[in-house]
Amino acid sequence: MGMDIRECLKNMTLEEKVLLLEGADKGFTNPVKRLGIPRILLADGPHGVRVEKGTEPDGDAPYTMTGEMEETTAFPCEAAMAATWDAGLLEKIGRCMGEECRALGVGVLLGPGVNGKRSPLGGRNFEYFSEDPYLSGKLAAALIRGVQSQGVGTCLKHYALNDQESRRTSVNVHIDERAMWEIYLKPFEIAIREAAPFSVMAAYNKVDGHYMSENEEMLAHILRERLGFPGAVVSDWGAVHDKVSAVKAGLSLQMPGPGRDAGRVIKAVEDGELTEAEIDRRAGEVLRLVKKVTEARGKKQAEPDWQEHHRAAVQTAAEGMVLLKNEDGILPLKQAGTLAVLGELAEKPCFVGGGSSSLTPRQMDMPLECLGGEYTVSYAKGYAANRTTEELLNQAVRTAGTADTVLLFAGVSTSESLDRDTILLPREQIRLVRAAAAVNPNIVLVTQCGSAVDYSEAEKYVKAILHVWIPGEGFGAALAAILSGRISPCGKLAETFPVCLENTPAYPDFPGVKDEVYYREGLLTGYRFYDTRRILPRYPFGFGLSYTTFALENLRLSSHRICSREELTVSVDVKNTGSMAGKEVVQLYIRDEKSAFFRPEKELKEFAKVKLEPGETKTVVLKLTEDAFSYYVPHLGRFAVESGSFAVLAGTSSRDICLEDTVEVISEDEVRLPLGMTDSFKDFLEDDRYTVYARQFLAALRVDESHMFYQMLLGVNLIQMQELLAIMGIDEATAGRMTENLINRQSEF
Amino acid sequence: MGMDIRECLKNMTLEEKVLLLEGADKGFTNPVKRLGIPRILLADGPHGVRVEKGTEPDGDAPYTMTGEMEETTAFPCEAAMAATWDAGLLEKIGRCMGEECRALGVGVLLGPGVNGKRSPLGGRNFEYFSEDPYLSGKLAAALIRGVQSQGVGTCLKHYALNDQESRRTSVNVHIDERAMWEIYLKPFEIAIREAAPFSVMAAYNKVDGHYMSENEEMLAHILRERLGFPGAVVSDWGAVHDKVSAVKAGLSLQMPGPGRDAGRVIKAVEDGELTEAEIDRRAGEVLRLVKKVTEARGKKQAEPDWQEHHRAAVQTAAEGMVLLKNEDGILPLKQAGTLAVLGELAEKPCFVGGGSSSLTPRQMDMPLECLGGEYTVSYAKGYAANRTTEELLNQAVRTAGTADTVLLFAGVSTSESLDRDTILLPREQIRLVRAAAAVNPNIVLVTQCGSAVDYSEAEKYVKAILHVWIPGEGFGAALAAILSGRISPCGKLAETFPVCLENTPAYPDFPGVKDEVYYREGLLTGYRFYDTRRILPRYPFGFGLSYTTFALENLRLSSHRICSREELTVSVDVKNTGSMAGKEVVQLYIRDEKSAFFRPEKELKEFAKVKLEPGETKTVVLKLTEDAFSYYVPHLGRFAVESGSFAVLAGTSSRDICLEDTVEVISEDEVRLPLGMTDSFKDFLEDDRYTVYARQFLAALRVDESHMFYQMLLGVNLIQMQELLAIMGIDEATAGRMTENLINRQSEF
Repeated sequence: MGMDIRECLKNMTLEEKVLLLEGADKGFTNPVKRLGIPRILLADGPHGVRVEKGTEPDGDAPYTMTGEMEETTAFPCEAAMAATWDAGLLEKIGRCMGEECRALGVGVLLGPGVNGKRSPLGGRNFEYFSEDPYLSGKLAAALIRGVQSQGVGTCLKHYALNDQESRRTSVNVHIDERAMWEIYLKPFEIAIREAAPFSVMAAYNKVDGHYMSENEEMLAHILRERLGFPGAVVSDWGAVHDKVSAVKAGLSLQMPGPGRDAGRVIKAVEDGELTEAEIDRRAGEVLRLVKKVTEARGKKQAEPDWQEHHRAAVQTAAEGMVLLKNEDGILPLKQAGTLAVLGELAEKPCFVGGGSSSLTPRQMDMPLECLGGEYTVSYAKGYAANRTTEELLNQAVRTAGTADTVLLFAGVSTSESLDRDTILLPREQIRLVRAAAAVNPNIVLVTQCGSAVDYSEAEKYVKAILHVWIPGEGFGAALAAILSGRISPCGKLAETFPVCLENTPAYPDFPGVKDEVYYREGLLTGYRFYDTRRILPRYPFGFGLSYTTFALENLRLSSHRICSREELTVSVDVKNTGSMAGKEVVQLYIRDEKSAFFRPEKELKEFAKVKLEPGETKTVVLKLTEDAFSYYVPHLGRFAVESGSFAVLAGTSSRDICLEDTVEVISEDEVRLPLGMTDSFKDFLEDDRYTVYARQFLAALRVDESHMFYQMLLGVNLIQMQELLAIMGIDEATAGRMTENLINRQSEF
Repeated sequence: MGMDIRECLKNMTLEEKVLLLEGADKGFTNPVKRLGIPRILLADGPHGVRVEKGTEPDGDAPYTMTGEMEETTAFPCEAAMAATWDAGLLEKIGRCMGEECRALGVGVLLGPGVNGKRSPLGGRNFEYFSEDPYLSGKLAAALIRGVQSQGVGTCLKHYALNDQESRRTSVNVHIDERAMWEIYLKPFEIAIREAAPFSVMAAYNKVDGHYMSENEEMLAHILRERLGFPGAVVSDWGAVHDKVSAVKAGLSLQMPGPGRDAGRVIKAVEDGELTEAEIDRRAGEVLRLVKKVTEARGKKQAEPDWQEHHRAAVQTAAEGMVLLKNEDGILPLKQAGTLAVLGELAEKPCFVGGGSSSLTPRQMDMPLECLGGEYTVSYAKGYAANRTTEELLNQAVRTAGTADTVLLFAGVSTSESLDRDTILLPREQIRLVRAAAAVNPNIVLVTQCGSAVDYSEAEKYVKAILHVWIPGEGFGAALAAILSGRISPCGKLAETFPVCLENTPAYPDFPGVKDEVYYREGLLTGYRFYDTRRILPRYPFGFGLSYTTFALENLRLSSHRICSREELTVSVDVKNTGSMAGKEVVQLYIRDEKSAFFRPEKELKEFAKVKLEPGETKTVVLKLTEDAFSYYVPHLGRFAVESGSFAVLAGTSSRDICLEDTVEVISEDEVRLPLGMTDSFKDFLEDDRYTVYARQFLAALRVDESHMFYQMLLGVNLIQMQELLAIMGIDEATAGRMTENLINRQSEF
């Protein structure tokens, strides 16, 4: 399809163009056969390709529900991917998924998701990377680059502020501008700038009273103008309520189809409610998407190397597992020991999430089988379908009592459309933990859960906790590799694990009251909350144990004084001080020492993962651009850098800062608010922008420090000043003119 | 002045009436000599009567600044009064102040203050009672009753949401309705209902963009209509910006005078901008205030019993002191021991606050003198004017080294108009603590501070901490009584002492950005925050040690099931289980077990202080009315009681709940929101208000549990339902009518 978009649009009827703005059969766009414009297929989801068998993307047969899914590689969930802190690995996964899309005729993969994790209760947290916007944005960009390198589009989702599942189709979000830009739009901004996703998905929810699909401020202004996104905006499935407003606001493609609004849109054009130019803009966006996706199809495409993809799934699962606790060095497991495996989740693992990210894997590595290959394993269910019985418990206790080590599988399934109502492990699983602990002190807890868990109860009974998220098809092999010590754990939390739900940043404002949700925690989400407000998390952001140990040394800055457009190079030496090969994640945070507006205690600005042999030292070199120092300044309506000192912190978690230095940043931005009538005269005198005028003001009044009114003058604001000037015998007009000139920095007093 | 207000108004000219609406000389109202309407004097402040010598209230001489103050009784600050948890004692103090007002010709005492304590940084926290609205309201009512029993008016202040000193004259408060009513208006509501203050002071700040003195919503609607306040509304000094709006909004008296707006008001009446009826209403309020106050003057007034007032000041200071720590039973002091007193605050105590609450006491009990009467005391400054030197430290160390016990005076002065910027003790004082601890382990820290302190550093070095607030003129005698053990400490914190500033509820939103302040913590202020969000305070609300011990036993409820208008009687036995007489405060909290809207984990609803001899047991009987169970329901626009289970908790601090029982409350209020288009069909089916209609809806569709669409129907909201009904073959009009009838609970499907 070597088509010229403008030419194409000229040749199309209004009806044809309008039909482009809505889906055809489920997942397909509408083709324009007359002009040789093909349909393309959009398919879930971020953790692998989800497409039904019988879908014939290159033909034009109507879609038939076969109910049977194509077998594809089930990668770990995004939360697990994020715990690898490995952008290179994510790009590789992206390539794998892109290849599978090509093989199955999928034009656009619906993902990745970069929504915020306001609360660990968020039902879809597993489908999002991190509570940190920078980490989310960088990892999303990597995944997108990977997928799109295969000529397959991505659809960055869910734009925006769709951070809960409760009432997700009707909830109305209220948020302050800084939190929106710094936390929730940031990952979109980074991914769009760095990886140019072919499309962005408009979410279900409302912001400030307007559904996202019809929200002109959020789509036309912020997404398109401010974030510079030129591509197709696709609605979430069923998210359009008023198609005409949606077209106006900037929505390109309404999904799913077939739609029922074409007539209404055509009538809107006829009535002058919409212009044909607006239709052309939207249709052009869809055409460009179709063109880009179709161009790649022509190229030769080899069958995906499924084995290679599976290995990538295993590696990601292993490197995303986070070892939270490892008492008495119970892990790695001794080679000769016997292993009691308890918990039905060993047998029926929760390896994919529900909803759009469910997948049918080609090759599933089951934990019991993989462990059985290496250890003498006995197994007892312990619970079935989350219920336990005396009999199941007794069996489990008998099994646990005879083994050297107990491997206890816990977890909860998570799915889109449903938030959790607790972050505790299911009570029945805790019963099993207690029962097992009564007969065997050597318990290793393996938790399948796509989000944070409150481990306070379970922790009392177990020696090790391995949090494996939703691990995908490589679960068994990855687990065996970690437990046996073939791979040292190197996953690091990309989200804070709190002491309890009540401690979490958005409590009790998540998920809001009916349809209204207020993001009262503002900027203080994730570790920004815990660290700024000095609330101890159970396991901090960035944390994860290893079988080896590391030391960070020699923090070096390329300069201790930079101008805002200059780059700062930061180097750190990382040494493997233990006796096993392993990987460490160097995390670079900055802290603004003093700012005109409040800033969180620290913010992640760069990171790198390094592999080190025992005794080996590598130098990690990280770059900080002015972005790293900037924050969103509402009265400027943009990100800006404030001059001043910034601490540069290198650590291995947000609570384990090993090295610190300071850089002075000189910026051209004026971040401070101008002074006004409600600022005190002292404020004017001490603010370098006003000092000279404030002094002239005093001179005109013939007031110096010895004057009886001097101290009073300093203390009052300019409104109160009027009263004081009257007492001093200055007439009202003169007093008004003087203060006005002071505010406007004019030398006429 | 046996005047009939209506008659009076008839006889007055517009000019005379308008002059009534502004002050005359500082503190006086304008008299109308022609009609025999006298002037009255309004004087500071909540902790004693502050009036300059030479003020002649009964004459009409112009006010002359003598600079010298009348000597009156300086009572402890409100925060200290609140720590007594003794309404009876506060009523007594009120009577004392009322008598002193009468003696000095003061018509209205400007106080008490019942603003909120959002942050321990609040510069005027010492002038407010408690972080708990119920405790604040009850204590304010007691104080008002006491003052007004003498025919002297009070002025309940600062109405409202004037909870910070930073930019207090320009700050604009944004707060949600529930927090406003449940936390910040509640003390006003209680005090107005229970004690009918003669006047209320309108504060400096803005709410929702309107200055309080001109805020029709806050004055005319909320204060007058909703809280039913019929009296005079007096502006804070200089708080009026637009006099015409102020008159319209409900402000009776603009202070201070003489004003400059009379001409403008008269012109507004002439121009029809204001009606004369509006002027009459405001002037009537002032006249009624003048009348009430003047009527009492005629009665015979004995000279106050200054000795009795001083004793009340001593008792209040002693019973308000809170013993936070007492290791190794270091207190009470051994009788024969030697005492090293360190710290200039022993010599120059901070016994009154700055600003309007500063006082000139008749009789000041100085700590050094009072302690010297009982102990062998040596004294060293340690610091002077908050600075220390090597020499001062060395002297202090020498003094400390030779004594049995060190009594170290620390503290910070606080004043209106200035918020603190830290809750730590001054660094120089901590240096002194460290130096003394190096030579003597037996340190008792005595802190003069009107608000919470972060003791984390000081605490490492001292065995005892006695927080004495701003203790008034009885400081020395009270301190000696407590330290010697003549009185067992019985003060209990009326505000939480946090681990650190960052842990406090309003951090980092206090004091806001420039003129905008958002009460993002909402309802979760004080212990409501710490307890609901499980953040451990250093010293919880309600906490205070004693030299004896108590046990709470036998919690009894008059019923386990009450209707909302019925009263619940709660009895608790309190036993003195130690070997010394003492007082304990029984605190009754309720916890709503389940509610349609979020509620804090617990809320104080009643309290009582009892004195017990060793071994003695008394039964405390407390009454809970429906108020105790209610909360503000925004969609009803009022407080309402939600049916359900309430835990009744009896304890000695918010974190030391000793006894618990449950009561079922049956209410006529329907607190739940009605259901609507964005609620799911399942919500309708399960809500007893809608169940019957939801079932009829299903029947009309011929859908039962076996129907293929049944589960889908349950899950969708009524907007999505339309789509589903279309698929089921229901036409749009019918579908619309059916859902509308379901929402409106009409049986037509």
